[in-house]
Amino acid sequence: MMLSLEGDRPLDLVTLGRACIDLNAYDYNQPLERTKTFVKYVGGSPANIAIGARRLGLRTGMIAKVSDDAMGRFVVNFLKEVGVDTSGIVVDHDGHKTGLAFTEIKSPTECSILLYRDEVADLYLSPGEIHEDYLRKSKILLISGTALSRSPSREAAFYAAEVARKHGTRIVFELDYRAYTWKSKYEPMVYYTLMARLADVVIGTRDEYDVMEGGRGQDEVTASQLLAYAPSIVVIKHGVDGSVAYTKDAVVRAQAFHAKVLKTFGAGDAYASGLLYGLISGATLERALALASAAAAIVVGRHSSSEAMPSLEEVESFMNESRER
Amino acid sequence: MMLSLEGDRPLDLVTLGRACIDLNAYDYNQPLERTKTFVKYVGGSPANIAIGARRLGLRTGMIAKVSDDAMGRFVVNFLKEVGVDTSGIVVDHDGHKTGLAFTEIKSPTECSILLYRDEVADLYLSPGEIHEDYLRKSKILLISGTALSRSPSREAAFYAAEVARKHGTRIVFELDYRAYTWKSKYEPMVYYTLMARLADVVIGTRDEYDVMEGGRGQDEVTASQLLAYAPSIVVIKHGVDGSVAYTKDAVVRAQAFHAKVLKTFGAGDAYASGLLYGLISGATLERALALASAAAAIVVGRHSSSEAMPSLEEVESFMNESRER
Amino acid sequence: MMLSLEGDRPLDLVTLGRACIDLNAYDYNQPLERTKTFVKYVGGSPANIAIGARRLGLRTGMIAKVSDDAMGRFVVNFLKEVGVDTSGIVVDHDGHKTGLAFTEIKSPTECSILLYRDEVADLYLSPGEIHEDYLRKSKILLISGTALSRSPSREAAFYAAEVARKHGTRIVFELDYRAYTWKSKYEPMVYYTLMARLADVVIGTRDEYDVMEGGRGQDEVTASQLLAYAPSIVVIKHGVDGSVAYTKDAVVRAQAFHAKVLKTFGAGDAYASGLLYGLISGATLERALALASAAAAIVVGRHSSSEAMPSLEEVESFMNESRER
Amino acid sequence: MMLSLEGDRPLDLVTLGRACIDLNAYDYNQPLERTKTFVKYVGGSPANIAIGARRLGLRTGMIAKVSDDAMGRFVVNFLKEVGVDTSGIVVDHDGHKTGLAFTEIKSPTECSILLYRDEVADLYLSPGEIHEDYLRKSKILLISGTALSRSPSREAAFYAAEVARKHGTRIVFELDYRAYTWKSKYEPMVYYTLMARLADVVIGTRDEYDVMEGGRGQDEVTASQLLAYAPSIVVIKHGVDGSVAYTKDAVVRAQAFHAKVLKTFGAGDAYASGLLYGLISGATLERALALASAAAAIVVGRHSSSEAMPSLEEVESFMNESRER
Repeated sequence: MMLSLEGDRPLDLVTLGRACIDLNAYDYNQPLERTKTFVKYVGGSPANIAIGARRLGLRTGMIAKVSDDAMGRFVVNFLKEVGVDTSGIVVDHDGHKTGLAFTEIKSPTECSILLYRDEVADLYLSPGEIHEDYLRKSKILLISGTALSRSPSREAAFYAAEVARKHGTRIVFELDYRAYTWKSKYEPMVYYTLMARLADVVIGTRDEYDVMEGGRGQDEVTASQLLAYAPSIVVIKHGVDGSVAYTKDAVVRAQAFHAKVLKTFGAGDAYASGLLYGLISGATLERALALASAAAAIVVGRHSSSEAMPSLEEVESFMNESRER
Repeated sequence: MMLSLEGDRPLDLVTLGRACIDLNAYDYNQPLERTKTFVKYVGGSPANIAIGARRLGLRTGMIAKVSDDAMGRFVVNFLKEVGVDTSGIVVDHDGHKTGLAFTEIKSPTECSILLYRDEVADLYLSPGEIHEDYLRKSKILLISGTALSRSPSREAAFYAAEVARKHGTRIVFELDYRAYTWKSKYEPMVYYTLMARLADVVIGTRDEYDVMEGGRGQDEVTASQLLAYAPSIVVIKHGVDGSVAYTKDAVVRAQAFHAKVLKTFGAGDAYASGLLYGLISGATLERALALASAAAAIVVGRHSSSEAMPSLEEVESFMNESRER
Repeated sequence: MMLSLEGDRPLDLVTLGRACIDLNAYDYNQPLERTKTFVKYVGGSPANIAIGARRLGLRTGMIAKVSDDAMGRFVVNFLKEVGVDTSGIVVDHDGHKTGLAFTEIKSPTECSILLYRDEVADLYLSPGEIHEDYLRKSKILLISGTALSRSPSREAAFYAAEVARKHGTRIVFELDYRAYTWKSKYEPMVYYTLMARLADVVIGTRDEYDVMEGGRGQDEVTASQLLAYAPSIVVIKHGVDGSVAYTKDAVVRAQAFHAKVLKTFGAGDAYASGLLYGLISGATLERALALASAAAAIVVGRHSSSEAMPSLEEVESFMNESRER
Repeated sequence: MMLSLEGDRPLDLVTLGRACIDLNAYDYNQPLERTKTFVKYVGGSPANIAIGARRLGLRTGMIAKVSDDAMGRFVVNFLKEVGVDTSGIVVDHDGHKTGLAFTEIKSPTECSILLYRDEVADLYLSPGEIHEDYLRKSKILLISGTALSRSPSREAAFYAAEVARKHGTRIVFELDYRAYTWKSKYEPMVYYTLMARLADVVIGTRDEYDVMEGGRGQDEVTASQLLAYAPSIVVIKHGVDGSVAYTKDAVVRAQAFHAKVLKTFGAGDAYASGLLYGLISGATLERALALASAAAAIVVGRHSSSEAMPSLEEVESFMNESRER
């Protein structure tokens, strides 16, 4: 096993960051301005990962801040229904809203998102709302990079990382870069770098690492610079060209599976779910990457990002079928 | 005719204020947090009034600011399609979004709205975006009270009123109070009072006049205080109990029509459309109020507020049928 | 008497707006960046006018918001010492500071001010801090235009004007334009126009009226437009070229006195003090303007704006001496 | 020598953070609200340290942002006059002001400061204004903790630290905690901890380390926690009870000198100047702490914090005299 974990804790994984609403075009293959009907799903990368990892069999929970309205209640209710622990979720009482993402699916390769993220509740998560006890209950804390984009959520994330380290809770940092809420190119450079060096596992696309480094970088350099600090695994994703994981001793590469693509959203969240399932269940890094890639390939063929998360059976049967082809 | 209008102008009515998106629950009679499917419509009181008055046969236009995205384009395209002049609409280039209203229709009498109005484009309409030429083209400028809730839209509305007065364009002030964007109870008191005294016609519900006056008021007092300034007609609405119009010489009362109510949204906008159609077409005040009430009664039975606006034929046939019952 | 006043009230004049700190260069005739020593005085136009009118013999008070620190206490203590009623002054408990003005006196004709007015306490005066009883106690309420430059002070000023009118307290509007805190050229146009039309007396320099009108205007036009609303006296100042007052029936002009000029600050505040003393004491408009001009001529030869305010004896003796020359 | 430095660089020390104005009461021993006359000095901890270290003979420079007005020009001119390199100082063109500190000296033990630091220019220093070349020119970069209190100055400081490390420029972190500009107790906890672990030398009072740790701590624990990361020297100050420096191998304690105290301001800045002079000139840690303590003891007996900084001769003669007593 690549990542030594504290045993015997009631939760395998707690994710920290946004829990939002996706409003997915019901009729796709047309521009958003012509779309008339939308279907509402829970969304947001860390919420999707908590759901996806739960679907795969892990015991998961979430640290988040949601609005005190129908949208916030919808998010919490859905997480509860699928078995994600919501005792770490706080309700905002200052009128901040739950973020929205309207998805536009013009074609499988032309997907875009229209975000409503001004003054959203998740960015108002504050350090005082992070509970030491809750972090001590979980083997892993996953921090979403978007949580670093604004104060006080930014400080909440760093504070949670500090508390996690103190209690032996491993830290996974998912870069999860969304340009929208950052104020300058320097902000993600500074805070991604500080957080990545604190984490045990770092996951991101090549483009996201480039944002962190402030320019076009190379995988080996990125990995070796991070492995000089706390990280023991650095995962770099290249879309259809597969992904690669670096450790101090090894480099492991994984192919992307061929998939019938409906939209690209949610692929990264499914990937992280599969990877973490692998790492927590004690799989080899090779198998963890394969599980990650398979979960991603399944989600891109489905309409939502959260409800679409596959079960372990689905992932395994998908992997078997792919192997046979 | 109660309101003397400049003749021979290319537009009858220009409305100033928000043009937004309504996301109406597709399956009503359930709480919003359970609603999964939403249908998108153009919304916002002044947009609805421009649409409603156009449907009744007036030549209408709009002064508004919309987002530079699919939502803004949807709004402008819809207005164009139904024949509302959009040459007074400006596009925001600072990243502000078009406002959203999620409607919850639990039952005909339990309707509520969840608003996304943080930093919305319409409140960033600025005085420099008000064009004197455009105001000179119209017989009437209708100002929505919500435009007064924030700077610079607040100054844009007062500036537009000043320019309108200079060119003999009559001013209609629709109180259109939405608690959400105001910072204190004093703000609407101060700015509603200042604007109402500048207007030729003032339209609002009893509750809205109470907000303006800072306490429970009486119709005759409200009317006589305003008629001492510029207004020549003061219309006060009492929901199912009908409405009343005061002029310097007369008091005219109108019954509400019996209606099959689906939801209450949009009733006020249809009312204003009917009233303005009456005033502009030279009807008596009695008939103008009747047209207003009939248009309102039709809209409450339909799913949207904008697309549901009735034609003159529909209004007249509804009035005939009601009379026969 | 030009202005009918309610008799028998405990205060003659209450001024509303900023009470600040002037830090005047001790060694003048040099640029501010070389100045090492500063002397602290109370400043801010409405504070200076309350002090100046008191010095002339009126019973004056002030409605203001000051910081909860040594600067705020200094202001209140000084006002008390010179006999200005401070019971209408509230203390800010949200950490806002008292504004500062560093004066640079390079030469009698090259004076400039460096203002510290970000988030100052006076602009946080709110309508809920305006007491009806206090306004009912005074014959006149003077509103400083700078109070209109930001919310909630802006609403507080309009609310106070409304309450004053209700109780027969006359309203004097001193345009007092300071570019610093306004966000666009339209804001002073809109709010100065709205307030000037509500006032009984309007006082300003030609430049200030031009800001209000949005372009270069003419005295007679400015006056006639305002006299069509509530104002009964419109005073327009032309610096060394004298000043002129318009009423519905008359035009009265006054020469500026020859003065030994040290700096130009404070002249306008002394002018207003003298004018109001004249109006309240029942002088003719001619004599009121002469008192105003004499008070201004005295202050420009002294180091401060507040402590320099002359007594009635000083003003009268100055007028006599000037006449003899 | 405790700190290995890159040799042969044109500057010994560059400080990063605020360069402000102190307005010191001319007549002390009275409360600020009675003080009428103030004398203007350059102030701000990193400015004072650049000046103090220069006075001791080091070649120093500063990275700062100042206002585009007489105050900003005064600061830059003074730094130039005393020989501090100002080529790293940028001028703010967005209207932000230079911070002010009014000092109140009631008695030698009752000193307080009234700060004007809303929207000040120094907190608007941005990462794009940090020049790699400039950092490469200096042996040491000193970062003031106050620079971490707000964005974008916060990111500028972390970015500068990263660039410094890349070029072998040693990092000194002076905690310099001023409660005023921080928004919560968690912000300094999070950012002080992140920065302290990046630095080679950390300097602060016991109280400042307690702010960083979020509670009452102990010197040995504080030191050992930091020495596990980048720092090689951790200096903790205890006011009149002396100071202590921890390295991986040693603990060095220094007595405070007896001093005739006029006010307490500036002592910490003089201390840092003396310490850095010692470290850079290759003194033992014992002598560096003694130089630091002596410089501090001299400054507390003088009126300003910047102009009062002693020369090396003054420090040495003070140390000799103290020894003889």
